[in-house]
Amino acid sequence: VPEFRLHCFADSGAAYKAALMLELCAARWEPVFVDYFNGATRTPEFRALNEMGEAPVLEHGDRRLSQSGVILDYLSSALSRFGAASADERREILRWMFWDNHKLTSYTATARYLLKVQDTDAADPGALAFLSRRARAALAILDTHLAARTWVASDKPTIADLSCAGYLFYDGELPYDLPADAPNVARWRDRIAALPGWKHPYDLMPGHPSRGPR
Amino acid sequence: VPEFRLHCFADSGAAYKAALMLELCAARWEPVFVDYFNGATRTPEFRALNEMGEAPVLEHGDRRLSQSGVILDYLSSALSRFGAASADERREILRWMFWDNHKLTSYTATARYLLKVQDTDAADPGALAFLSRRARAALAILDTHLAARTWVASDKPTIADLSCAGYLFYDGELPYDLPADAPNVARWRDRIAALPGWKHPYDLMPGHPSRGPR
Repeated sequence: VPEFRLHCFADSGAAYKAALMLELCAARWEPVFVDYFNGATRTPEFRALNEMGEAPVLEHGDRRLSQSGVILDYLSSALSRFGAASADERREILRWMFWDNHKLTSYTATARYLLKVQDTDAADPGALAFLSRRARAALAILDTHLAARTWVASDKPTIADLSCAGYLFYDGELPYDLPADAPNVARWRDRIAALPGWKHPYDLMPGHPSRGPR
Repeated sequence: VPEFRLHCFADSGAAYKAALMLELCAARWEPVFVDYFNGATRTPEFRALNEMGEAPVLEHGDRRLSQSGVILDYLSSALSRFGAASADERREILRWMFWDNHKLTSYTATARYLLKVQDTDAADPGALAFLSRRARAALAILDTHLAARTWVASDKPTIADLSCAGYLFYDGELPYDLPADAPNVARWRDRIAALPGWKHPYDLMPGHPSRGPR
């Protein structure tokens, strides 16, 4: 019997952050498919699950949690992996997770949405250009940070790494190129992909037309 | 002698979240002006303070913290105000703070920037329209949430309220109108403005041409 249920879908890098955490920890979990592209997150049923109308949502016993940052923080305690070794380190992890949500993931995910989903919509050409510039500026901050570091917030991988990397495995769908635009980020991404149990988002979560969990 | 130093400027709603927390707690603090509009956050000196290149930065003893969410979390412990009464409540507070950073503040602040600072730049007309739609969608989530609630994440005001309200006092500069577009948000904003010690961002932080701290 799965211990955790994660409402997710293959194209959600936010959900991937939580799914990857569960998988790297070898947790007993099952994905619950969120049919986002057919409006699932706008239904009253989903809004009752999460009024923010977003994946991921984690169910653990009677507990329901949303926001990938909260889920990662919760799982790092529940599973005793990828968490902080001290209060100062906890703040440093949280700092990069807030930055990721506000800057790197926000601009990257929104630009990717316009590139991949709304690519036939010519009404917002300025939006894509603007968001892409912001996404590249955020990526540059992370690349500079990783120039002399192995991991984002500690000498070990933590939930800050899983958060910041959430969208970076969607090669060819992003508003920048790796490794060309950020070689340090690319090498760090390779280190994450080398962690035992790592899977690509399309292999870990349901909804990709030809891939997905078995 | 001030106990806390906050690097901030009048137009930063992110810095206001921290400044308002310090003021409501009657902390001994002083603002340090960040001359953002003349490029201060791009200088090597500021990047040494915060590699993310953003205000606010809080100095407390030898500790330097950035990201408003981390600063609020830290101050709620250090000052024993506006924090959580339980682990579950702490997660609920964190959930709204992540959502605020990713959605409400992110889209609102960026749209306001285009409205107020780049308003002579006609290169990104689609960007402003797109970001404004996203900001209004986030505002609607909060308005629905507050329909039957007094505060965002608890039966008392918490740092989640201070975070979500960070940009909402810049009347006339936002991509939506209060109270017209979100009456529940407007009433909740009034409750925050009624907290003892409350000040408008332009009266609390330096950099406004005709207002600012005395």
